[in-house]
Amino acid sequence: MISDLHIAPARDNELQALLQHAIDHKTKPPGSLGRLELLAAQIGQIQQTASPVLRDPAIIVFAGDHGVVAEGISAFPQDVTWQMVENFLAGGAAINVFARQNGIALHIVDSGVRHEFGQRNGLTGRKVAPGTQNFAKQPAMSAVQCAEAIRHGRELVRGLSGNVLGFGEMGIGNTTAAAALMHKLTGIPVADCVGAGTGLSPQGIRHKQQVIEAAVALHAGVTAPQEVLACFGGLEIAMMTGAMLEAAQRRMVLLIDGFIVSSALLVAARLQPAILDYCVFSHQSDESGHARMLDALQVSPLLKLDLRLGEGTGAALVYPMVQAAVNFLNQMATFGDARVSEKTAD
Amino acid sequence: MISDLHIAPARDNELQALLQHAIDHKTKPPGSLGRLELLAAQIGQIQQTASPVLRDPAIIVFAGDHGVVAEGISAFPQDVTWQMVENFLAGGAAINVFARQNGIALHIVDSGVRHEFGQRNGLTGRKVAPGTQNFAKQPAMSAVQCAEAIRHGRELVRGLSGNVLGFGEMGIGNTTAAAALMHKLTGIPVADCVGAGTGLSPQGIRHKQQVIEAAVALHAGVTAPQEVLACFGGLEIAMMTGAMLEAAQRRMVLLIDGFIVSSALLVAARLQPAILDYCVFSHQSDESGHARMLDALQVSPLLKLDLRLGEGTGAALVYPMVQAAVNFLNQMATFGDARVSEKTAD
Repeated sequence: MISDLHIAPARDNELQALLQHAIDHKTKPPGSLGRLELLAAQIGQIQQTASPVLRDPAIIVFAGDHGVVAEGISAFPQDVTWQMVENFLAGGAAINVFARQNGIALHIVDSGVRHEFGQRNGLTGRKVAPGTQNFAKQPAMSAVQCAEAIRHGRELVRGLSGNVLGFGEMGIGNTTAAAALMHKLTGIPVADCVGAGTGLSPQGIRHKQQVIEAAVALHAGVTAPQEVLACFGGLEIAMMTGAMLEAAQRRMVLLIDGFIVSSALLVAARLQPAILDYCVFSHQSDESGHARMLDALQVSPLLKLDLRLGEGTGAALVYPMVQAAVNFLNQMATFGDARVSEKTAD
Repeated sequence: MISDLHIAPARDNELQALLQHAIDHKTKPPGSLGRLELLAAQIGQIQQTASPVLRDPAIIVFAGDHGVVAEGISAFPQDVTWQMVENFLAGGAAINVFARQNGIALHIVDSGVRHEFGQRNGLTGRKVAPGTQNFAKQPAMSAVQCAEAIRHGRELVRGLSGNVLGFGEMGIGNTTAAAALMHKLTGIPVADCVGAGTGLSPQGIRHKQQVIEAAVALHAGVTAPQEVLACFGGLEIAMMTGAMLEAAQRRMVLLIDGFIVSSALLVAARLQPAILDYCVFSHQSDESGHARMLDALQVSPLLKLDLRLGEGTGAALVYPMVQAAVNFLNQMATFGDARVSEKTAD
C-alpha cells in the first residue's frame, strides 16, 4: 500500500546557495530574521525554487475513536469525539476560528468515529470502523484496517488543490495511543511519554501509564513501524500517516501540530525518513511528552504557547509565520535595489 | 509635558471573573489554549469588556540618528538610517512586507534623522534635531529636546483611529543607546546589556561596552528616568516613550517589539508602572540583552524566533496571535451552545 512511495530529501546544494544568497542580500543585517530565514530556505527546497509560492492552504482534521477508553484513560467521555465533530461542522471549535482567520480551508474527516453521522455537508466519510479495539486486550486495528486507513489518507491528499497541508485530529483517548506509539518507536520510557491529555489528575496519569505498560508487555513482539501503528494507533492517526506520506511525496509543505499529529509523523518518518524535510513543526505542545518527541525527531518547533488542544490549532496559528517567510523572500528589496549601504567591518 | 498622564491598572476583578468564565466554557479542555487565554483576558481588561474588538491596527516606525556612532559602535554606516527610511517609503523593507501581510497600517516618522528628506508622501516629519549628540561627550538630548520628542509621540497617537498600536524603530547606533538606558534603569551590568546589534564582532562588542561604561561614569549624577532618557536615549526612543504613554492612557493594546522598543518602554514603565498592563510582548529578540530586559520588566514574550531586525517586525508578526486570542473569545461555541459533554472526574 505504501511500497510505491519514495520521498526524496529536499536538500539541493546548488539551490541552497541560491536561496542563501537571496536571503543574505535582502535589506536587513545577515541572519536577523532568524527562524524565518531557515523556513524560507526550507520552503524553497520543498518547492525546488528560489521563489516559492503558497497555494490554497488546507488543514484536514481526522477524527476517530479509541477502544482503549474502556480502561478509563481520559478526562472526557468518548461521546465528545462525535460531539466535537458536530462542533467542527457547525463552525464553533477553535480550529474553525483559527482556520477562518488565516484563510485556511478546513476539511473534516470521519476516519473512525463511534457514531453514525449519515450524509452530512462538510463531513468527508472515510470510516474504516466505528473506533479501534482496546489495545489493552488486542491490537487496535487489524493489518488490513490499518492499511485501509493509510490508503484513505493518501487518497484524500490527492484530491487537494494546494501545496500547504496542516494536520489536525480529534479522538478521545488518542494521547494514550500517541504515547504508546512514541514509546514503541523511540524507546523513551512510557513514564516520559504520558501526560495529562485533556486534563487527567496525577493519579489518572499514573493509571494511563500502567495501562500502556501492560499493553506494551502484552504485544511485546510488535516492532515494525506499520505493525506498531496497527497495534497501538488510531484510525485517525493511521489516516494522518498516510496523508503525510502522500503530501511529502507531492512536495507539499506539511504543517505538523502537537503530540498526536507528531506521533503519526513519527511512524511516517520511520518508514520514509526524508519526510522530515517537508515538515514545519508549528509548536511545542504543553502535553508533557511532546518536547521529548520533538527531540527524538531532532526538530525544533516554531511556537511555544502552552497549547494542548489539538484539532490542528497549532498548525493554523503558525501559518502566518510560514507566509511571512515566503513573503520576505519574494517581496523584500535587496541592498542593491534599495541603494542601502552594506555592513562595514568594525 | 507628561504630568497630566495617569495610566490606570487594567485589572478589574469582576471583569476578570467574567472573562475567565467565558474562556473556560468554550469547547476545549480548560486552559488548553495556553498563552492565548491569558492574552484574551488581558485584551478584555484593556478594553474593559468581555467582548473585545481590534480596530485599525497600526505600527509606527520611529527613525532617528545617534551621535554616539562617532565612537565606532555600529557594524553599519550612519547613512543606513536614512537609506532604510527611503526603503520603508518604497515598501521594500521587512516591516513593509509583514505589515502588509497582516493588514496593519504602517506610519513612518522622521523623529531625528541626520538627513533632509523634504516633503515626502508617507513620511511624517517630526524631526526634533538632525540626530542626537554623542553621549560619550555630552548628553544626547537637552531636556527641552527630550520633552519635545515625547510630546510629538503623544500627538501622533492622538491622530490614530485604531485601538492596537505596534512600535518599531530605525536608527544606526540605537542598540548602544538602548543598552545604556537598560543599565541605568535596571542596574544590570553594562556587559549584560550590550550585544552585537546589527552584527558587531566580539571585539566590537567589547568596545561598545567600554564606550557605554565611560559614558555612564561621565554622567554619573543622572538618575531620574526622563533625565536618563535625555542623556543616553535617542529622539526615536523618546518619541516612542511618549507614544507608548499616550497609547496606554487611551487604553490601546501596545505591541512591543525587540530590544530598542523595550528600552523605550522601560523608561515609560519607570514613569507609569501600570503601562505594562497594556503591553503585549511580541518576541524575545536574539539581541543578547533583551532576555534580561524582559526579565527585569517581569514579562514573558510570546514568540522566540531569533529575530534581531527591529523596525517593529516582531510586533507585526505577533499580530495574528493577538487576533486569534480575540477571535476565539468572540467566536468559539460554548459547551452549552454546541451540546458537547464537559470533563468528567478521572
